[in-house]
Amino acid sequence: MAHIDLPEGFPGISAGFTYRPETAKPMRELAHVLLHEPNSLTPGERELIAAYVSSRNNCHFCHASHAAAATAHLGDAAVVEQVSTDFMSAPVSPKLKALLAIAGKVQQDGKLVTSADVEAARQQGATDIEIHDTVLIAAAFSMFNRYVDGLGTWQPDSPEMYEMMGRHLADEGYREPSIRQPVGVAEEHSVS
Amino acid sequence: MAHIDLPEGFPGISAGFTYRPETAKPMRELAHVLLHEPNSLTPGERELIAAYVSSRNNCHFCHASHAAAATAHLGDAAVVEQVSTDFMSAPVSPKLKALLAIAGKVQQDGKLVTSADVEAARQQGATDIEIHDTVLIAAAFSMFNRYVDGLGTWQPDSPEMYEMMGRHLADEGYREPSIRQPVGVAEEHSVS
Repeated sequence: MAHIDLPEGFPGISAGFTYRPETAKPMRELAHVLLHEPNSLTPGERELIAAYVSSRNNCHFCHASHAAAATAHLGDAAVVEQVSTDFMSAPVSPKLKALLAIAGKVQQDGKLVTSADVEAARQQGATDIEIHDTVLIAAAFSMFNRYVDGLGTWQPDSPEMYEMMGRHLADEGYREPSIRQPVGVAEEHSVS
Repeated sequence: MAHIDLPEGFPGISAGFTYRPETAKPMRELAHVLLHEPNSLTPGERELIAAYVSSRNNCHFCHASHAAAATAHLGDAAVVEQVSTDFMSAPVSPKLKALLAIAGKVQQDGKLVTSADVEAARQQGATDIEIHDTVLIAAAFSMFNRYVDGLGTWQPDSPEMYEMMGRHLADEGYREPSIRQPVGVAEEHSVS
């Protein structure tokens, strides 16, 4: 049960967003710019970074929803799963591996990132803006994950629900709610 | 030296904000709503939570600037310092102590927050929105701190500079930059 009187039937971060629209708006906007707007890293690659960080923070809701968004972009759930469990052996680019290594350090503590980590990413072709956005995606999910878990939000198990949310996020981005109506006890969902 | 080609002479987060205005805008807005807009927790109390979390994350720039903002609001640097080192013995309200305990858990992992922590805060008069905002301030500074450190930003030592930034933040909030011009090598500052 949530720690405070959040609106019922809203899973994960959508409960906090519905409860406090004033903070939801900039948080949505930040996610939209980082994950959805055009960028030299594809939306699928950026969702992989978000899912990876959320996995390391053991935030079920965020990991499942961003893994689903990554899968919707990339069309390969196995790769998405492998990035969270062992990205070095996953069939993703050397550049993305170097960026995931930076993201994993930021998830722990930004001070762990070294010049060598950044140089390794550059040698694989990463640009400054890609390195910047990787650091900020990892930092932002250190926020989103703590927000979702710290409020004790309801985090459904239903894989179908995450699949629908992920598809919505991949198609529409983050500016508008993916969950507009409370989800029933039978875990019906209204992703519009 | 910063890990990427950030604009020179901008300390801490102002370098990232100047480099990437698209992400700066929602990050500024979030800080403004959480720390500066009217709320039943005073701005000074909220800056204490921000400074405390930043201290626990060993982010010098964020700790020094938000401690300075808290001092500008509260007029007592010793209390601000004591909150970061040993808040249980600091002369702040029992309600704020209960909220700082929650913030300290969120700084580690949101899942550490228990119903007992929340009940303890409620017994000291904390409202749901105050608990929500405490969780989100702690989560947001888990982002800001990682962003500042993960980019390897320049974090000046000058106490006078933090004092000026803190005064500006306390007076004006977070929507507009507190650092508009590069700061010279002699650590001149232009807080406008």
